Amino acid sequence: MRALAYFAKNKIQFSDEIPEPRIELDDEVLIDISYAGICGSDLHEYLDGPIFFPEDNAVEKISGKGLPQPMGHEMSGVVSKVGPAVTKVKVGDHVVVEATSTCQDIYRWPNSSFPKDEECGACKKGFYNCCGHLGFCGLGAYGGGFAEKVVTSERHVVKVPNDIPMDVAALVEPLSVAWHAVRISGLKPGQSALVLGAGPIGLATILALQGHKAGKIIVSEPAKARREQAALMGAETFNPFDHGKDAVDVLRKIAPDGEGFDFSYDCSGVKQTFDTSLHALTFNGVAVNIAVWGHKPIDYYPMDVTLQEKFVTGSMCYTIEDFKAVVKALHEGSIDISRAKRMITGRQKIEDGFEKGFMELINHKETNIKILLTPNNFNELSE
Amino acid sequence: MRALAYFAKNKIQFSDEIPEPRIELDDEVLIDISYAGICGSDLHEYLDGPIFFPEDNAVEKISGKGLPQPMGHEMSGVVSKVGPAVTKVKVGDHVVVEATSTCQDIYRWPNSSFPKDEECGACKKGFYNCCGHLGFCGLGAYGGGFAEKVVTSERHVVKVPNDIPMDVAALVEPLSVAWHAVRISGLKPGQSALVLGAGPIGLATILALQGHKAGKIIVSEPAKARREQAALMGAETFNPFDHGKDAVDVLRKIAPDGEGFDFSYDCSGVKQTFDTSLHALTFNGVAVNIAVWGHKPIDYYPMDVTLQEKFVTGSMCYTIEDFKAVVKALHEGSIDISRAKRMITGRQKIEDGFEKGFMELINHKETNIKILLTPNNFNELSE
Ligand SMILES: [Zn+2]
Ligand SMILES: [Zn+2]
Ligand SMILES: [Zn+2]
Ligand SMILES: [Zn+2]
Repeated sequence: MRALAYFAKNKIQFSDEIPEPRIELDDEVLIDISYAGICGSDLHEYLDGPIFFPEDNAVEKISGKGLPQPMGHEMSGVVSKVGPAVTKVKVGDHVVVEATSTCQDIYRWPNSSFPKDEECGACKKGFYNCCGHLGFCGLGAYGGGFAEKVVTSERHVVKVPNDIPMDVAALVEPLSVAWHAVRISGLKPGQSALVLGAGPIGLATILALQGHKAGKIIVSEPAKARREQAALMGAETFNPFDHGKDAVDVLRKIAPDGEGFDFSYDCSGVKQTFDTSLHALTFNGVAVNIAVWGHKPIDYYPMDVTLQEKFVTGSMCYTIEDFKAVVKALHEGSIDISRAKRMITGRQKIEDGFEKGFMELINHKETNIKILLTPNNFNELSE
Repeated sequence: MRALAYFAKNKIQFSDEIPEPRIELDDEVLIDISYAGICGSDLHEYLDGPIFFPEDNAVEKISGKGLPQPMGHEMSGVVSKVGPAVTKVKVGDHVVVEATSTCQDIYRWPNSSFPKDEECGACKKGFYNCCGHLGFCGLGAYGGGFAEKVVTSERHVVKVPNDIPMDVAALVEPLSVAWHAVRISGLKPGQSALVLGAGPIGLATILALQGHKAGKIIVSEPAKARREQAALMGAETFNPFDHGKDAVDVLRKIAPDGEGFDFSYDCSGVKQTFDTSLHALTFNGVAVNIAVWGHKPIDYYPMDVTLQEKFVTGSMCYTIEDFKAVVKALHEGSIDISRAKRMITGRQKIEDGFEKGFMELINHKETNIKILLTPNNFNELSE
């Protein structure tokens, strides 16, 4: 079949000779892909990888699958075939794929080097989003959505009502990353939130906060183009560079009661945003890290948390519950579909995905948010 | 009256010429002191102070009171007189004093430099334990319990049933510090807890955990004498020095399901205990700082929290609710009175409080836990 695939370190190419995935187990589902978004981690695999993908000539640790493999873990599609044990979806259903691969998927992989009946501590306790062997569909565990077809088990599939367009459905995955962060933070309707960074995850966090009925939402972002995008999502924006050393004090004061925010979400992951995420909180506030950090320490002062009984935490990936909740929020309107659609800044054929997708995102980082690739919907493409 | 008072920097002395406090407002209560415990922060005032006390020839910021002042913020006593508006207690009642002094107490201080109708952000939001001007009875705000008498407002007084001995009642304050930490951490019955350090606060935390019906409680403490004290409180003990670099792994394995603890409480406040408090947790675990740290940074890796969705927080002081809960726990037996009594390793007259109290604690840190001073109960004294 046709697919944009990861072939080897720094080698991502379109090919029309990628083997078609087949239903091999009774609980599996074959999906004809409509759209799949390019994610920052896809770019990361290309520029700095392999990270999740196996090394050249190796296989992925849990699935035992080697290269090449179609990329793409943010996908929507239509069910075209189901295994005999499938009950949740039927042929013709619109679906999205929850892309994790964990200990709970080992049963699907005949070539796995892991024993079938062993689970890591996280999976044993039900936190499969924190699985010690976490992998992803489209990032090396098994073939992803920059392709004509994907096969996964029905436990990774969520049905999407037909009122949600298929391009917006491809955003359910990044929205689920943000939804999970807001969910585990415990934000209640009306509470205030500070979002640090208005890249794709920061923008998704605005929508997830709206889905959770947050009160005041302020996004701190130094880049003008990104602040404008955040404003289009319905958030108030703040340029920390306008205020220099006073930025945190100013932020605390523009919070609803002038004493800081109930929640902060660090979508940037640098020392300055960590510090702001903590210091711009009010008493009992919760600072949530969503960013991926390298293994470099930052300075931490325990009394910064203690004196005002703040909480510091981090959000890891998502679960199928987050996908269901995002689909529901889109369906019911608490996440506005037309706002979500503004995250899509490009649509390309999978054939052109490397040049007009990956390279476009790498070279025009600030004006792009999400570029979707499609194997089929050629009548909806960008110029 | 007779009192052990803070006179000036590094000058703590007994005197029988300290002015007796009087009821001056309608909501005030006069208390004849039974016992008052010496706290680590009292020693800290002597060795490194003034910290909470005013500088020599100055006055305390909120109360406007100068020196000398009786020390002692962990006290029990008997009500001997009440103002006309007092409704919560009557003459003869056994009571303990919640020792905070905050924005909410300014109305009591005619010499305060603060406007009567202004509250800090913390007090405004009800977190008076985090008050920006936090002071304490017995630490400079107003006269404390190393004295014959104390006057406070009834909002700082909790009645103690007569089945709780007055010496144990003097432990309600340090137990409330620990109770507050366990309460805000959200521990539910049966959940596991790691306590780091078995000094007075660590031991109080064991009792507070029992009061919250924690499951497995393990105390990590390098000093043998303190481990023995922790064992007498009913906790399992662990010597981190027996395991060198593997200490955290071993701790994780001896947690109930072999995957780390649900909660940790850092009662030591050094880099090693911070790291252990975080790494010995299971998924979604909560690390609570109870220790007081200086303003020196420690290394923090955001992914240490994020990958397993842990929480880091800190506990600040207590509120009157913690005092009520500790008194209830002692009364109902969920905190064992005879175990609590084991925290008392000495009793002395206030006359001898400096030599046989302060100096004894400074010179024999590991064998002592809590030394109580009393102005009256001379028939119950230590040798
Ligand atoms: Zn992604
Ligand atoms: Zn796992
Ligand atoms: Zn104390
Ligand atoms: Zn205050």
